[in-house]
Amino acid sequence: MLAGWGIQAVNAHLSAYFSGMKPRIHILTLGVSDLDRARRFYRQGLGWSESRHSSPTIAFFHMDGGLVLALYALHALAEDAGMPLPSGADSGAPVSPAGEHAFGGHTVAQNVGSEAEVRETIQRAIAAGGRMLVQPETVFWGGFRGYFADPDGHPWEVAYNPGWPIDPSGALSAE
Amino acid sequence: MLAGWGIQAVNAHLSAYFSGMKPRIHILTLGVSDLDRARRFYRQGLGWSESRHSSPTIAFFHMDGGLVLALYALHALAEDAGMPLPSGADSGAPVSPAGEHAFGGHTVAQNVGSEAEVRETIQRAIAAGGRMLVQPETVFWGGFRGYFADPDGHPWEVAYNPGWPIDPSGALSAE
Repeated sequence: MLAGWGIQAVNAHLSAYFSGMKPRIHILTLGVSDLDRARRFYRQGLGWSESRHSSPTIAFFHMDGGLVLALYALHALAEDAGMPLPSGADSGAPVSPAGEHAFGGHTVAQNVGSEAEVRETIQRAIAAGGRMLVQPETVFWGGFRGYFADPDGHPWEVAYNPGWPIDPSGALSAE
Repeated sequence: MLAGWGIQAVNAHLSAYFSGMKPRIHILTLGVSDLDRARRFYRQGLGWSESRHSSPTIAFFHMDGGLVLALYALHALAEDAGMPLPSGADSGAPVSPAGEHAFGGHTVAQNVGSEAEVRETIQRAIAAGGRMLVQPETVFWGGFRGYFADPDGHPWEVAYNPGWPIDPSGALSAE
């Protein structure tokens, strides 16, 4: 049936049928070795409320703007995603040659309104059981930021970026 | 000045001053070993447009709902976050004992409206250079999902979950 069409026409047809993957992330899931400890950090420590969709085995938090952050057992998450565990990792998390939490390939960032707010937010996270990864400092791209790790070593950046405004919805401006 | 106050009053005072960390993620950054290849996958492959905040060394994509997805050199990202590289990882990414991409501790998920849409979205990602991690299938929580990996091994779940509706804004319902 498509035989009489030119390639352009076939592509246009396919494209109308399925034009690509939507640019949308609904859930970011972080694998954790101790779900009770992780829940305490995000709930009592950071002060976040759990979603009614949470269960004893998975914790969900609705982020402002609509993203859902999930916490789930790291071994179970790797198995769910069909991925092998890293070399030398008993816990399932990447480890460095020195046996510490190693970089897993991702970071998450929260942008705030001032350098003071960067410092306060990171201090609060450290007081809640986070670990300082990078002390707040001025960086080459013109902003000010630091990093803390949650109890499982997931890195959180807290940044003030005067060059990228926050829009009225609270998200980084797309303009 | 606080000496005459009870502990409860001091806590209430501190809490009014700084009540916790906002539940907000502005940017999720994925470390990549070849930024050109990663850009091709997300731009030409998945059909996403880059933000004007992108530069030659970092790619930003505005997701529906306001989250920004960033792609950045994996070594540079680990260094920025002050984290050591995993054991045995020349590329900076976690590797399994067999030398494959190993689980880094996180997954991202996009929820779609039907089982057919799960299949189509994953097929599209595979055609764009993604790798099948888990064939679409019915799962214990009552939904239907599969996983693909991007060219750097970051796992993406595509799911249909009839038990968790998508609200009019396109996010997972908080109700």
